[in-house]
Amino acid sequence: MNMLYLAPIVGVLALLFAAYKASFVSRQDAGNERMKEISSYISEGAMAFLTREYKALVVFVVVLAIILAVGLKSIPTAICFIVGAIFSVAAGYVGMKVATKANVRTTNAAWKGGLGKALDVAFSGGVVMGMCVVGLGIIGISCAYFLTGGQTEIITGFSLGASSIALFARVGGGIYTKAADVGADLVGKVEAGIPEDDPRNPAVIADNVGDNVGDVAGMGADLFESYVGALLSVITLGVVAYGEEGVTFGMLVATIGILASIVAAFFVKGDKNPQKALNAGEYVAAAVTMIASALLSNHIFGSFSPFAPVIIGIAVGLIISKFTEYYTADDYAPVKRIGAESETGSSTNIIAGLSVGMMSTVGPIIIIAIGIIAAYLGAGGSADPIVGLYGISLAAVGMLSTTGMTIAVDAYGPIADNAGGIAEMCELPEDVRDITDSLDSVGNTTAAIGKGFAIGSAALTALALFVSYINATGLTGIDISKPEVIAATFVGGMLPFAFSALTMSAVGNAASEMIDEVRRQFREIPGIMEGKARPDYARCVDISTGAALKQMVVPGLIAVIVPVLVGLLLGTEALGGLQAGALVTGVLMAIFMSNAGGAWDNAKKYIEGGAHGGKGSEAHKAAVTGDTVGDPFKDTSGPSLNILIKLITVVSLVFAPLFVAYGGLFL
Amino acid sequence: MNMLYLAPIVGVLALLFAAYKASFVSRQDAGNERMKEISSYISEGAMAFLTREYKALVVFVVVLAIILAVGLKSIPTAICFIVGAIFSVAAGYVGMKVATKANVRTTNAAWKGGLGKALDVAFSGGVVMGMCVVGLGIIGISCAYFLTGGQTEIITGFSLGASSIALFARVGGGIYTKAADVGADLVGKVEAGIPEDDPRNPAVIADNVGDNVGDVAGMGADLFESYVGALLSVITLGVVAYGEEGVTFGMLVATIGILASIVAAFFVKGDKNPQKALNAGEYVAAAVTMIASALLSNHIFGSFSPFAPVIIGIAVGLIISKFTEYYTADDYAPVKRIGAESETGSSTNIIAGLSVGMMSTVGPIIIIAIGIIAAYLGAGGSADPIVGLYGISLAAVGMLSTTGMTIAVDAYGPIADNAGGIAEMCELPEDVRDITDSLDSVGNTTAAIGKGFAIGSAALTALALFVSYINATGLTGIDISKPEVIAATFVGGMLPFAFSALTMSAVGNAASEMIDEVRRQFREIPGIMEGKARPDYARCVDISTGAALKQMVVPGLIAVIVPVLVGLLLGTEALGGLQAGALVTGVLMAIFMSNAGGAWDNAKKYIEGGAHGGKGSEAHKAAVTGDTVGDPFKDTSGPSLNILIKLITVVSLVFAPLFVAYGGLFL
Repeated sequence: MNMLYLAPIVGVLALLFAAYKASFVSRQDAGNERMKEISSYISEGAMAFLTREYKALVVFVVVLAIILAVGLKSIPTAICFIVGAIFSVAAGYVGMKVATKANVRTTNAAWKGGLGKALDVAFSGGVVMGMCVVGLGIIGISCAYFLTGGQTEIITGFSLGASSIALFARVGGGIYTKAADVGADLVGKVEAGIPEDDPRNPAVIADNVGDNVGDVAGMGADLFESYVGALLSVITLGVVAYGEEGVTFGMLVATIGILASIVAAFFVKGDKNPQKALNAGEYVAAAVTMIASALLSNHIFGSFSPFAPVIIGIAVGLIISKFTEYYTADDYAPVKRIGAESETGSSTNIIAGLSVGMMSTVGPIIIIAIGIIAAYLGAGGSADPIVGLYGISLAAVGMLSTTGMTIAVDAYGPIADNAGGIAEMCELPEDVRDITDSLDSVGNTTAAIGKGFAIGSAALTALALFVSYINATGLTGIDISKPEVIAATFVGGMLPFAFSALTMSAVGNAASEMIDEVRRQFREIPGIMEGKARPDYARCVDISTGAALKQMVVPGLIAVIVPVLVGLLLGTEALGGLQAGALVTGVLMAIFMSNAGGAWDNAKKYIEGGAHGGKGSEAHKAAVTGDTVGDPFKDTSGPSLNILIKLITVVSLVFAPLFVAYGGLFL
Repeated sequence: MNMLYLAPIVGVLALLFAAYKASFVSRQDAGNERMKEISSYISEGAMAFLTREYKALVVFVVVLAIILAVGLKSIPTAICFIVGAIFSVAAGYVGMKVATKANVRTTNAAWKGGLGKALDVAFSGGVVMGMCVVGLGIIGISCAYFLTGGQTEIITGFSLGASSIALFARVGGGIYTKAADVGADLVGKVEAGIPEDDPRNPAVIADNVGDNVGDVAGMGADLFESYVGALLSVITLGVVAYGEEGVTFGMLVATIGILASIVAAFFVKGDKNPQKALNAGEYVAAAVTMIASALLSNHIFGSFSPFAPVIIGIAVGLIISKFTEYYTADDYAPVKRIGAESETGSSTNIIAGLSVGMMSTVGPIIIIAIGIIAAYLGAGGSADPIVGLYGISLAAVGMLSTTGMTIAVDAYGPIADNAGGIAEMCELPEDVRDITDSLDSVGNTTAAIGKGFAIGSAALTALALFVSYINATGLTGIDISKPEVIAATFVGGMLPFAFSALTMSAVGNAASEMIDEVRRQFREIPGIMEGKARPDYARCVDISTGAALKQMVVPGLIAVIVPVLVGLLLGTEALGGLQAGALVTGVLMAIFMSNAGGAWDNAKKYIEGGAHGGKGSEAHKAAVTGDTVGDPFKDTSGPSLNILIKLITVVSLVFAPLFVAYGGLFL
C-alpha cells in the first residue's frame, strides 16, 4: 500500500479524537443556572460574530473564486480554494463551539472537582481545536493531492482558501477582542471603578467573547494557514527534489506529528502543577515525532539527511519560544527593567517597552537565519540546490508537525481565562477563582510562547512558499541588484508598517465606538450600577462585531491587491523582491510588536505583584499606560502580520502562472 | 583644460564664502556681559564635547587605519581614510564654532536690529556649516581622485573616514542632546516647576549645548557622509558607464549645486516672513542647479538622458520633504488626530503617534521605489544596465547637489533656538523673545523637513554605494533566493531594530545620570533656587559628554563588525543581502521614528496653542508623554539609522577586496 494514504487516515483519526474530546467536554456539568446563563451570553456572542464574519466571507470567497476561475482559467483551483476556505471555517466553528462550552464547565470543575479536573476540562477543550486544525489540514491537502494527481498549481488554491479565512479570523478577531477589552477596561474599570469581569459592565460579555474570537479562532486559523502552507510547499518542492518519495516523507512527518500529539495529550494531567503538565505534553509530542521521523527518513531514503531539517525546524520553534519567554516573562531582566522604568512615568515605561521589543528581534532572527542555512545544507543543498530548498520546507513542516499539541496548549489559555471571568460574574467562592487564576496565569505564559511559535512558523512557512514561488515561476534567481527588484523590496518592506498602522487605528476606532456605547448604557439604563437592571450585552457584542468587520476591509484588500499589482506591472522577479521585503520586515515587526506587548503586560502584573509600590502607585499607573499600548501590539497588529506575510506569498504563488504570462507590463 | 578641475576650485570658493560669512558673524556685537557669559558657557560646553569626542576618535581612527593598511595591504587607503576623518572633523569643528558664536549674536541682533537682522545672522551661521561640508567634501573626493589616478578602491577610504566621524557625531551627539534635554525638562520643568531655559537649572547649558552638538554637528556630519558617499558612487559607476566623462558629469553636477547654493544664499533675507526667505533660498538653489545640469548634460553627452536622474533625485528629495511636512506639521490631519487622541490619555496618544509614524512610511517609500526605477530607466538602463546603475548614483548626487543650502537652512534652526534660550536666561525684553520665537518656530519646520531630506539622501546614497559594491565585487547579481543570502538579509533587516533599541536605552541611561545630578545640585547647593548661587553647569555638560561617548561604543562597533563578519563567513553575495536588508528596514525605521517623533512634538505644541483644553489640561499631559517618547525617536535613534545604513554599505565596499579573496569561510 502507498504509505501516503496514511496521511488522510490519521487525519480522520484526529477528527475522531476531537469528537471524543468534544463529547467528553459536553458531558461535563455546566453548573448552576446563573453560570449557564452567563456562559450562554458568551457562546451566543461568539457564534453571532462567527456567523456575521462568515456571511461577509461568502462574498469575498465567491468573488475571489470567480477571479481564480476566470483569471487562471482553472475551475479546479477555484474549487480547491472554496474547499480550503470551508475547511478553515469548519475548524474554527467547531473549535470555538467547544471552547465556549469548555469555559463554564472548567469553572464548575474547579468548583466541584478541584485543579486536576479543571485542567482536564480546559485542556480537552483546547485539544478539540488542535485536532480539528491538523485533521482537516492534512485531509484537505492529501485529498487535493490524490484527486488532482499531484498538480501543485491547483492545490495552491486550497492554501489560498485557508489564508483568506485566516485573514478574516486573525485580523477581524484581533480588532474585535481589543476593541471590547479597551472599552470594558477604560469605562468600567477606570471611569466607573468596578472590577474586571463585573457583570454590571455592558462590555464584559463582548470582552469574554473576544478572548474566544481572537485567541481561539484567530490563533487556530493562523496555524491552520501555516500548517497547510508548509504541507503545500513540501509537496511542491518534494516532488522536484525526490519525486513521490519527497512528497511522502514530508506528509508522513506531519502524520507522525499528529499521532504523537494524540499520544502526548494523555500525558497532560495532574492536580499539582498545570505548567508542568502542559510541558510534559509538548515534550512527549516533540520527542516522539523526532524519533519516528528519524526512522522514517532512514526507511525511505536510507539516510538521515532529510531528517536533519525536521529536527532543525523543531529546534528553531523551541528556541524562539525560549527567547519569547525571556523577553516577556517577569522572571527575567527585560520585564523587570520596564517595571523599574515605570517609576519615572509613562514615557520611560513606553521607551523601555519599545526598546525591549526591538531588542527581542535579535535572538529569533539569528536563529531563523542559522536555521535557514542549516536546513538547506543539512538536507544536502551543497550537492543539489533543489534538495536544499526542499530542506527549508521540511524545516517548516518539522516545526509545525506538533501543531495539534501546540494549539491545544494555546487554546487552553482563553478557556481558563473565560472560566475565571464566569466564576467572578457568578460570584462563586474565592477558592474557585484561585484555581482558575492559577490555570490562567499558566495560560498567559503559554499564550506568549504560542505567539512566538506562530511567528516562527509563519516565517518558515512564508519562506517555504517563497521558495516554491521561485520554483513555480521558473526563475533562476531573484536578483536584488536589479532596480525593479530592489524597488519592489522597499515596497514589500513597507507593507507591514502600513498594515500595522491600519490595524492599530482600527482598534482605536472600534474602541471609541465601544466606549461611547458603554458610557451611554451607564447613563441611560436606570439601576445598572446597583445591579438591578441588566446591561444590554448584545448591543456591545454587536458593535465589536460590526466594527471589526468594517475595519478589516482595507488592510485585507491591500494584502491581496498589492502583490497582484506588482506582479502584473513589474513582473515575477520584482514580485519575488516584494515577498522578500515583506517577509523580512513582517517577521521583525511581528516579533517586535508581540514581545513589546507581552513585556508591557507582564511588567504591569509584576508591579501589581508588589514591586515598585504595587497596585495604585505612580509606577502602576505608568505600567497601565504601557499595557494599554501593548494590547493592540500583541493581540491585533503583531499577530495580523503573520497572516500578511503568508497571504502575500500564497497570492503570489497562486497567481504565478498569470504573472509568468503577462507580468512586467510597466517595464 | 579638464573641466573636472572646476570641482576643487569651486570647493575652495565655498570655503572662502564660508570664511567670509564666519567673519561677518564674528564682527557682530555679542551683546551685554551677561549674554557673553551665558554664551561662553554654551560654546565652552560644545567645544569640550567635541574635544573629548575627537580624542576618543583618534583611538578609533588609528586602529581602523592599521586594520585597513594591514588587512587590505593598502597604505594609500588608510591615508585616504585618515584624511576623510580629518575633513569631517574640520567641517564639524568650524561649523559648531561659528554656530555657537552666531547664537548670542542672533539674540543681540533681534534685540537691537529686529527680525531681518536676526535672520541674517542666524542664517549666516548656518551657511558656514553648509559651505564647509560641501567645500571640504568636493575638495577631498576630487583630490583623492586626481592623486590616486582614479583608483576608486582607494578613494573609498575617504568615504569610510567620513562615515566613521558621522557615526560618532550623529549617534554620540544624539545621545548627548536628548540626555541633557530629558534631564533638564524632567527635573527642572516638571519637578522644580521652573520654566524652560531658566538659568537656575543646572542642565540648561548642557541642553543648549546639545542643540549644537546634535542638530548642527550631528546633522552636518550626517550630510557630509551622504555627500561624499554619493560622489564616491558616481565616480565608481561613472567611470564604468562612460569613462572620464561619466566622472566629470557627476562631479560637475555637485559643483553646480555649490555655486547655485552660494548664489541662493543672497536671496535669504527680509524682515517679514523668515519661512518665505528660507524657501526662496532653497528654490533658487534647486532651479539654478536643474537648468545648469541640463545644459551640462547636453554639452558633455549631447543628450539629456544623464540629466534625467539628476532631476529625479532633486524631485524625490522635495517630495519626501513634503510628505514629512504633512505628517509632522499641525496644519494637517495626522498631528490633529494625535491631538484629539490625547483627550483619552497617554496610551491613545502613544498609539496614535506610533500609527501615524508607521503610516508615514508609505508615501516616501513609494516615491523612493519609483525614483529608483525612473532614475535607472531615465539614464538609459534598459539599453545598458551599468548606465542605469550610474543613473541611480546620479540621482543621489542630484538630490545632494544643493546640500550647502540644505545644511544652512537646517543649522539655522538650532542657532535660533539657542538665541531664544539666551534671551530667556539673560532676561531680555519680551519682544526679543518674540522675534527669536518666530525664527525658532520656522526652525522647527525646517528641522523636520531637514530630517526627511537626511533620510532620503541616506537612502539614495546607501543604495548608490550598494550598487558600487556589486560592481566592485564583480558579482553578476545578488540572488535573494539563495539560503545564505536570505539569511543575511534577515540579519541585515534586524540591525536597525537592534541599533534603535540600543540608542534608545543609551538615552535612558544617560538621562538617568543627568536626572540624579540635577536633583543633587538642587538639594546640595544652597541658594540655587533663589538664583543666588550659580549651578554647576560644567558638571552636567561633563555627564552628558561622558555618557554619550560611553553609550555609543556598542552600537558603533556593531555597525562595523557585523558586515565584516558576514562578508568573511558567508561571502560577498550574502553580504549584499545583509546590505539590502539593512537598507530597507533602516530607511523604514528612520522614517517611522523621525516622523512619529516630529508628530508627537507638534501635537503637544498644537495643544499648547489652545486646542483640546490647552496647556495644563489632561490632553496636554498626555501629549507631553508622547513628546518625551518622541525625543529619542526623532533626535537619536531615527537619525542614527541614516549613519548605520551608509556605514554598513561603506564598510562592505572598502573591505570588498578582502571578501572577494577570503569570503565565505563558513559555506
